[in-house]
Amino acid sequence: MDVLVPFATSEPKTRLAGVLTPEERSEFARVMLEDVCETIVEAGGSPTVLSTAEIDCEWPLTVDDRLLTTAVNAHLDPPIAVVMADLALATPAALSELFESDGDVVIAPGLGGGTNALVVRHPEFYVDYHGTSVADHRRIAGEIGATVTETDSFRLAIDIDEPEDLVELVLHSDGPAAAWLDDAAVSVTNEPTGGRATVSRDRNDS
Amino acid sequence: MDVLVPFATSEPKTRLAGVLTPEERSEFARVMLEDVCETIVEAGGSPTVLSTAEIDCEWPLTVDDRLLTTAVNAHLDPPIAVVMADLALATPAALSELFESDGDVVIAPGLGGGTNALVVRHPEFYVDYHGTSVADHRRIAGEIGATVTETDSFRLAIDIDEPEDLVELVLHSDGPAAAWLDDAAVSVTNEPTGGRATVSRDRNDS
Repeated sequence: MDVLVPFATSEPKTRLAGVLTPEERSEFARVMLEDVCETIVEAGGSPTVLSTAEIDCEWPLTVDDRLLTTAVNAHLDPPIAVVMADLALATPAALSELFESDGDVVIAPGLGGGTNALVVRHPEFYVDYHGTSVADHRRIAGEIGATVTETDSFRLAIDIDEPEDLVELVLHSDGPAAAWLDDAAVSVTNEPTGGRATVSRDRNDS
Repeated sequence: MDVLVPFATSEPKTRLAGVLTPEERSEFARVMLEDVCETIVEAGGSPTVLSTAEIDCEWPLTVDDRLLTTAVNAHLDPPIAVVMADLALATPAALSELFESDGDVVIAPGLGGGTNALVVRHPEFYVDYHGTSVADHRRIAGEIGATVTETDSFRLAIDIDEPEDLVELVLHSDGPAAAWLDDAAVSVTNEPTGGRATVSRDRNDS
């Protein structure tokens, strides 16, 4: 399975600003990209990084500086998968199940209405990542008469965008991105109110 | 599979206070409880509601007014499962896979370090829902030499606790709890910043 991995080089992961510096966010985004591409290979896929600018990268690289939706549609040659570069919780098993699921369109929903990974086997399908993309992708599939399958995976549902997503990476991964967080002294903290755990950081700069 | 479904009758779902009134939160919690019990039956399980007080309920009921961890441990007679009453996204397929997974202890992790569902086949295992319970449950299993399996399910990872969890219910369910939200005019709204979707409510009281 050919797999596009979109990657934005400019100011990645701005929502992690409360935890990581700009330089760290860029470095962390690159670690996640490598981690995801490696997992795709272990799942039997062939990743191509679809980057907004040239980067030094061990995987095949296509540069397209247009917006995410435009760039993905320009390179969407079915059968093909699209896997987001921040799915650092993804496992080979979760991606294999996605790649092998039947359906003209296979969707791995992300938290908050996103489409974290996608398999496209229908020539008329196109993506629309703006807004609640999972609803848009169901609608687009319906309009062209394409069958839709949705996977049920926690590991594909968590894209690492917000500080609380780091909790999941610390608790549920021992891959390179989780190791990077551990080196950066990011750890899990319980809320005194008993809600979901958050992350804190031990900034020992002295 | 016998399944305990813990249910707190007093002031349920306080974190939904920004969206629902106290009376609505109680009603919504009851709708989710019924929804989850029905799904357990469809998955081949036999639910017993473990409630902190008497409720009118069509399922077998055990009343225990102690704290969650104490009450569950008092009624944990393996083989048994524990499924939280707010897993309104759970499907028969997701619960069947949980019930049928091998392992002395099978964990369905919840967002933020929770343990949303659990199968216990080892007589010495006990639960500890305080804090990051998924880490505690792994530790407890290790201490008694019990094997642990973890499922990978988005539908079991989302317990309906926070307003953003309602987004998932609206987008990914057509069950009774989702229908209740629709009747209450709770709908999904996109963030102008392009982040994850949130919910809003059309309060037309006139």
